[in-house]
Amino acid sequence: MRFTKGHGTANDFVLLDDPDAQLALSDAAVAAICDRRRGVGADGILRVVRTAAVPGWDHLAADAEWFMDYRNADGGAVEMCGNGIRVFARYLADRGRTTSAEIPIATRDGVKIVRLRDGVDVTVDMGAPRDMELLPQDGVFVSMGNPHVVLFADDLALAPVHDAGRLIEQEWDGGTNVEFVHVTSKTSVEMRVWERGVGETLSCGTGACAAAVAAHLRGYAGREVDVTLPGGTLQVEWTADDTVLMTGPAVLVGDGELRPAWLALNDIRDDEETP
Amino acid sequence: MRFTKGHGTANDFVLLDDPDAQLALSDAAVAAICDRRRGVGADGILRVVRTAAVPGWDHLAADAEWFMDYRNADGGAVEMCGNGIRVFARYLADRGRTTSAEIPIATRDGVKIVRLRDGVDVTVDMGAPRDMELLPQDGVFVSMGNPHVVLFADDLALAPVHDAGRLIEQEWDGGTNVEFVHVTSKTSVEMRVWERGVGETLSCGTGACAAAVAAHLRGYAGREVDVTLPGGTLQVEWTADDTVLMTGPAVLVGDGELRPAWLALNDIRDDEETP
Repeated sequence: MRFTKGHGTANDFVLLDDPDAQLALSDAAVAAICDRRRGVGADGILRVVRTAAVPGWDHLAADAEWFMDYRNADGGAVEMCGNGIRVFARYLADRGRTTSAEIPIATRDGVKIVRLRDGVDVTVDMGAPRDMELLPQDGVFVSMGNPHVVLFADDLALAPVHDAGRLIEQEWDGGTNVEFVHVTSKTSVEMRVWERGVGETLSCGTGACAAAVAAHLRGYAGREVDVTLPGGTLQVEWTADDTVLMTGPAVLVGDGELRPAWLALNDIRDDEETP
Repeated sequence: MRFTKGHGTANDFVLLDDPDAQLALSDAAVAAICDRRRGVGADGILRVVRTAAVPGWDHLAADAEWFMDYRNADGGAVEMCGNGIRVFARYLADRGRTTSAEIPIATRDGVKIVRLRDGVDVTVDMGAPRDMELLPQDGVFVSMGNPHVVLFADDLALAPVHDAGRLIEQEWDGGTNVEFVHVTSKTSVEMRVWERGVGETLSCGTGACAAAVAAHLRGYAGREVDVTLPGGTLQVEWTADDTVLMTGPAVLVGDGELRPAWLALNDIRDDEETP
């Protein structure tokens, strides 16, 4: 089983090339591959598969040839990932799967348009922010497909990311991600993020978009904001026609092959037919 | 730059094949490769190099053809690693670099004898325990090349691994590793380990040996003890002729190649001549 490892602002993925949907990966198989010490190690797996070969999503095949099948490190399917889709697009271009600079990619959150830039950068159209709500103490709620509570703080080192993050996640109906944002200018903010179900992470693409939207709504920033996270910087633009464009790096680290003995040890069958 | 990833009881390594010592890896290059999110990810790098090609250690070449150049994830050179040397031996056999089941391997702690077993297991002769000292409250100090303070506990879940581990490491002259050991029978113990300069880890080969020696010295166990750590189980035998044999798994996960663009991004030159 061949793989490629890649990351976007330190959010990292194992890409598995499976154009004709021949891999059937159990949750345990995904977890074994993502195990950082016993396996390859990653936040999740991006299976690269033709949309037409994905039951339930083949209706998107007319709009997007490739489907991003994102599985979390615990095996669970995820709708969309702003960092993952940039790496996914970089991989498609690298493999010659697309010759266009503007690539439609099917996800469980619908078709997203991704544009390759010079160098390592990739831009994703994340769609419009939704369900915005002003909260007490300058807070903002916004959905970028997933929910975000954005709070502003003067000193991120002292921000109660773990304590308040956990509490707000738990008390918010259905759970939420929580961003702590320090505004450094009209065009730049710094941010730490508490991800729902995960804890503090080095980067969150939808969270960066939510932070930029909230900073603009509160009058702290313009429509174009550089969002610096511990894992790197993302450029976010909330356009006049109400879509959020996120630009950031997508790096391919290396390519490899899992050993047959390791696959056997973990009860993973290679080139398995889908059930 | 080609690499292989492997682990022993969840202590994981990137192996770099460099028989003729052509790689000159800076500390920053080692750190970039070991970065779990932006690189391949590992606890350290095992450079596989001919002993005769290693300045300062070539006098060992008569006794051991291959030298284990172990660098920690921060780039620092390490004398010896009980988990790493098992993986190193498995790699040599896998690559056809040795046809003997008993392999001498040169390390910065001298030549170690390693024996391949059936399946994934490998046995390492760790040498004699030294500088043993009985401490208050059933504690034992023992050196296995590096220092260990072994403490016995009834309930490992409640053992003060972080608080007492950190304190003892700091207060012990020169620092020390600290093992918390729960005796489950005359032939088996469970253990958690605080590694000097690292914190709690899933496995420590020399720590498992120290735990077995201490349990025997205190009369809790015989000379053969299974030591179960969070990362897996190691079999330790303190022989009648005073050497410690440690047996445990050595697993090769997969093989890969770092991308030239990633190497360039991290200022790593491939196939660099040694200075």
